[in-house]
Amino acid sequence: MNYHSAIFSKYLGDEQILQLVSDEALINKMLQVEIALAKAQASTGFLPANVAEEIKDSLIQLKIKPVDLSAGTLQNGIPVITLLSLAKEKLSDDAKKHLHYGATSQDVMDTAQVLIIKDVIAVIEQRLKGLIQNLTLLYSQYGDTPCMAHTRGQQAIPVTFGFKVNVWIQPLQRQVQRLTEIKQRVLQVQLGGAAGNLSSYQHKGEKLIKALADEIGLAASPSWHTQRDNFCEFTNWLAMLSGLLGKMGADILVMSQSEINELVENADGGGKSSAMPHKSNPILSEALVALAKINANLQSQQLQSLVHVNERDATAWILEWNAIPQMIINAGAALNHSLTISTKIKVNTDNMKKNVEGFLNNRNNSK
Amino acid sequence: MNYHSAIFSKYLGDEQILQLVSDEALINKMLQVEIALAKAQASTGFLPANVAEEIKDSLIQLKIKPVDLSAGTLQNGIPVITLLSLAKEKLSDDAKKHLHYGATSQDVMDTAQVLIIKDVIAVIEQRLKGLIQNLTLLYSQYGDTPCMAHTRGQQAIPVTFGFKVNVWIQPLQRQVQRLTEIKQRVLQVQLGGAAGNLSSYQHKGEKLIKALADEIGLAASPSWHTQRDNFCEFTNWLAMLSGLLGKMGADILVMSQSEINELVENADGGGKSSAMPHKSNPILSEALVALAKINANLQSQQLQSLVHVNERDATAWILEWNAIPQMIINAGAALNHSLTISTKIKVNTDNMKKNVEGFLNNRNNSK
Amino acid sequence: MNYHSAIFSKYLGDEQILQLVSDEALINKMLQVEIALAKAQASTGFLPANVAEEIKDSLIQLKIKPVDLSAGTLQNGIPVITLLSLAKEKLSDDAKKHLHYGATSQDVMDTAQVLIIKDVIAVIEQRLKGLIQNLTLLYSQYGDTPCMAHTRGQQAIPVTFGFKVNVWIQPLQRQVQRLTEIKQRVLQVQLGGAAGNLSSYQHKGEKLIKALADEIGLAASPSWHTQRDNFCEFTNWLAMLSGLLGKMGADILVMSQSEINELVENADGGGKSSAMPHKSNPILSEALVALAKINANLQSQQLQSLVHVNERDATAWILEWNAIPQMIINAGAALNHSLTISTKIKVNTDNMKKNVEGFLNNRNNSK
Amino acid sequence: MNYHSAIFSKYLGDEQILQLVSDEALINKMLQVEIALAKAQASTGFLPANVAEEIKDSLIQLKIKPVDLSAGTLQNGIPVITLLSLAKEKLSDDAKKHLHYGATSQDVMDTAQVLIIKDVIAVIEQRLKGLIQNLTLLYSQYGDTPCMAHTRGQQAIPVTFGFKVNVWIQPLQRQVQRLTEIKQRVLQVQLGGAAGNLSSYQHKGEKLIKALADEIGLAASPSWHTQRDNFCEFTNWLAMLSGLLGKMGADILVMSQSEINELVENADGGGKSSAMPHKSNPILSEALVALAKINANLQSQQLQSLVHVNERDATAWILEWNAIPQMIINAGAALNHSLTISTKIKVNTDNMKKNVEGFLNNRNNSK
Repeated sequence: MNYHSAIFSKYLGDEQILQLVSDEALINKMLQVEIALAKAQASTGFLPANVAEEIKDSLIQLKIKPVDLSAGTLQNGIPVITLLSLAKEKLSDDAKKHLHYGATSQDVMDTAQVLIIKDVIAVIEQRLKGLIQNLTLLYSQYGDTPCMAHTRGQQAIPVTFGFKVNVWIQPLQRQVQRLTEIKQRVLQVQLGGAAGNLSSYQHKGEKLIKALADEIGLAASPSWHTQRDNFCEFTNWLAMLSGLLGKMGADILVMSQSEINELVENADGGGKSSAMPHKSNPILSEALVALAKINANLQSQQLQSLVHVNERDATAWILEWNAIPQMIINAGAALNHSLTISTKIKVNTDNMKKNVEGFLNNRNNSK
Repeated sequence: MNYHSAIFSKYLGDEQILQLVSDEALINKMLQVEIALAKAQASTGFLPANVAEEIKDSLIQLKIKPVDLSAGTLQNGIPVITLLSLAKEKLSDDAKKHLHYGATSQDVMDTAQVLIIKDVIAVIEQRLKGLIQNLTLLYSQYGDTPCMAHTRGQQAIPVTFGFKVNVWIQPLQRQVQRLTEIKQRVLQVQLGGAAGNLSSYQHKGEKLIKALADEIGLAASPSWHTQRDNFCEFTNWLAMLSGLLGKMGADILVMSQSEINELVENADGGGKSSAMPHKSNPILSEALVALAKINANLQSQQLQSLVHVNERDATAWILEWNAIPQMIINAGAALNHSLTISTKIKVNTDNMKKNVEGFLNNRNNSK
Repeated sequence: MNYHSAIFSKYLGDEQILQLVSDEALINKMLQVEIALAKAQASTGFLPANVAEEIKDSLIQLKIKPVDLSAGTLQNGIPVITLLSLAKEKLSDDAKKHLHYGATSQDVMDTAQVLIIKDVIAVIEQRLKGLIQNLTLLYSQYGDTPCMAHTRGQQAIPVTFGFKVNVWIQPLQRQVQRLTEIKQRVLQVQLGGAAGNLSSYQHKGEKLIKALADEIGLAASPSWHTQRDNFCEFTNWLAMLSGLLGKMGADILVMSQSEINELVENADGGGKSSAMPHKSNPILSEALVALAKINANLQSQQLQSLVHVNERDATAWILEWNAIPQMIINAGAALNHSLTISTKIKVNTDNMKKNVEGFLNNRNNSK
Repeated sequence: MNYHSAIFSKYLGDEQILQLVSDEALINKMLQVEIALAKAQASTGFLPANVAEEIKDSLIQLKIKPVDLSAGTLQNGIPVITLLSLAKEKLSDDAKKHLHYGATSQDVMDTAQVLIIKDVIAVIEQRLKGLIQNLTLLYSQYGDTPCMAHTRGQQAIPVTFGFKVNVWIQPLQRQVQRLTEIKQRVLQVQLGGAAGNLSSYQHKGEKLIKALADEIGLAASPSWHTQRDNFCEFTNWLAMLSGLLGKMGADILVMSQSEINELVENADGGGKSSAMPHKSNPILSEALVALAKINANLQSQQLQSLVHVNERDATAWILEWNAIPQMIINAGAALNHSLTISTKIKVNTDNMKKNVEGFLNNRNNSK
């Protein structure tokens, strides 16, 4: 994993979303989990309130750079051990002893991952609703314009442009509904300890989970650290979103072909060519199609993480470390490009009508 | 596509489910759609009641063999045209004219696909609930037996066997919940006509859809024939199911290793070897892991079908013809093997305890 | 796995190739391996010549139906044990004892798989060369006709139709070259015994491998049964072939669009529509694109088989049982459709020229 | 695309290889192509020698930061137009006119990609040969130690540790052979102009390609810019390498399980746990297995790029921009970890023997 490119960061990436899934975000969320755990443990009697306060005060100011964790991650296969060791440098002996009490690295990483997803959902849901709004406006502006339907690559019968736009909108509305259902399952705290059975917390494990969940703003749940279905359900949602936007992109690519010329992806001017100054390329729609394929492919990787053997299995877990942020970025970039298209698209209603007329004439002539 | 094997039909297939997704089932469902369409069109005034009756009486007795459709499918890229032509051979001129009125092949194939999925869900849901029951019984029988947890391939701390079984049960319960949500979306009739805009039905299209849906036992819906998200959501559910059962299989493979010997997959005797008579191989668990990988991979193919260009696109649609039935069979086979395991598994509680004791002794000695 | 369809057998399958990878072929090849092994063992002193003769005479007439092996395959996770048990029914006690001597099931299945691939390569290579010939003829007939190039969906500059045809031919020529290299590696006998180390054959293992290889018409090789790279190299070749033919199909789909109308995929008439009698759909080209995607996806499954743990690992091996024959059939079907297209395609040279003129006029006008 | 992480840069990345595929490398290679093109065009009479000199002198000192290209890449869907515009800022009017003469962006990007692959191959081939050497040494040190083979998860028969090591070495040797063949095909210059037909170079196109190839150290070739098979062949090689190293990793994971304890991945100490101080986790082997799965999955994405429609198709091309560098990094990281393992691995010969004895005793007792 780990290929990145500033060159392609705007075309095939999403700078806002990238921040939300960045190393820095992960470090912040992991520290936030440790703080919340200490507070929850104070409130449930596992450690003194002043220790929780010390942990919070210290960790909140802690500055850990991603590169500080890279050697430790190579050593341990996870960054948490080095993170804890850096955190402890500033703590009293008493607080050192209590930090991360009874928890395991995966508790911290999984809950941090969920917190990241929560932030991501907020942004993506808003963009998605904005896109539905823009497309609805497009529908209201040009919905009645007749244009040709194509089936299996051939002109079929006349429909309206509104019919086509509706086909883009309807599944996005279902995506909003699905997200509501998925949020119930995925936004849950993970706490299980060494092997997931809360062994260090005696009879108070469930109470502690509840306190941690409240503290951190997630739902309580029994330990799910070897049950990766909620993540896979969410990433499939991302892949479906990318696929649906890819269909919109593919439709635009056809309608903007030189010989059809019914749409211009970007009225402000499309992509230029180094060899052909006359070109104006629908490059955002192309990216939509490519991002759809990439996310479709990544979902297969993510689904393989379900076979998470025993009580921790990095051969499966690592697959997610790569797939989840990549899929989020891809979906975010696709939404961004779709938003741009939805406001910049130029509808050549005259050409739509002309193509319909051409079809009708041809059909009459061939009778 | 199209590789099949009677040799592997029981080990890597599912004979009951295979029937539900077979050519014969598809032909029956397509004829059922044509009959229901005629009846719905009679009730909404598109054709005389006696014509609908004739269509029903004739099609219900029609025997079409899959092979009768293969040459026509090569010719047209879909079987429906040949199916209709065979159906018309037995009809009066009047009924010929009205059969399939205003519909397109994809309406018939998509609605037939949904009917197949409905049958499949009934079987799979029952098996899934049966499996949860069996595993719950296993939990109640052996739940308290101590056994070793393993993290990253190494012994971790003692847990109980019940803890492990619970990890298998919990996500299956979420799968039941998810299926309830998905059924609302996927079990919908498709009717749109040539390009999906109900062009032949004037203002009565919506009413006709409602009548067809009632007739055939599905929910009514605007035409969704180029919106393939509901299928992708369902197949991801299948892939998640396969993955979750794959995790159970993988856990059993570890616990049944010769050196660990805590579980015997099948108390009646496992797989034999042609070279080593002493072997008893956990071959069902191996199949569970393999089927999980295969379905994870197929979901990527299925997601590519979302980029369904224009108003019909066989370059995308064909992907589903292959992926949906394959994924259904794989999930069905995985459920079958899991059911077998859940009743035949032998739990070596003595060895579980012995392994825990060995771990505790080692740890004490190394102190 | 195991979905099959007579309905789609000609459109998305390949009936000739299907025979080569069928259950019946697998059974024949496995019996052929057992016969050759006995003969090789006779010639290297492991068993009396008359026993090898008896084995040959008996197995050569043995009729085993695929369904006879399905229950045994469910029991053992491999068909070989049941196959041997059926074979032994007809043998003398002496021959029973010597049949399959020192070998393991995987030796038989792997060598049988290689023999199947050898047959497949013969057919596919011939088709591939025929296709290159046909395309070369097409080039010579219409190579100089000017037509428009398109980059990123837009008209670019005029090229010739011959330029486009050449782009289809050149990589196919490289495929011929690659196949020559791959055949050296993949067409090798597998013999290793229980764990692959030839333990039953003392110092004569290598000699026996050589004798078996000669007998069966493959190259000799040290045991490779847990080294699956040769198969993965071959299947990638199949996926590349499918992808290259998919590019040809995709080009034809664009050039045969109603608004461009430069090619007709099949001059004898394309696919019909049940709703639109005016349609003539390029349904073979669509299949080429879909088959390319399906084989691209299957290669990922096949590559997962490389992580074949220990000395036998069905969680990896099963992936091949499904992927290899499927990929072969898909590539075979794609070749068949390409051959059809290469002889039936209609080149509308007038429209090609007209589109070039239209482009040049537009460009001049916009200056 | 574009997720990156400094945290995981050493564990799941490869810092040396990352440099070779970085934005900076891409910019350098693209500038190198423009310089070489100018020189080749001078030598073939397309431009004056002093102009080529000016272009070389200017571009060689040009400092372009990746971020300088990101807005332009969003605008044009490729970075080359902005790169050229930055390059022209420092050129005389005459040189401006001649820079990039007759070439298209894809010529520059494709040839730059090949130059990057050439650098990558040099590093990877050296590592691969080093690994074979180390494993051969391991074989010579411990090759005769008896240890248990496992088939289908169960103890099979005793083999030697050398037998297992050989299984890791043999396919790597074939990989060396394959690379020799692949280099012939992949290390070729791309030059075609706007649509690939060398339209700007009249009859001198072939001569220019030869001159450019000589200048830049690649083989000459007719334009192949829509024929992506050579890249797919190379990436499959990378995926096979990752898969083969994944098999080694998976074997080590089994042999280092607490209950088997025959290998310690890293004699200097393995991964630590935040919850269990007694753990020493084989975290490099886990990464090997995960990287194998990730690269297997990416090959499917890469193979989709073969369906590169018309004369340029970013919906296919973009897939490579992501897949090729990612797959290179993954293979590089896997080689690095394998090299570490091959020098740090601890072989517990006593435990190997003990496990064999345990097996033999069990077998005798059960007789």
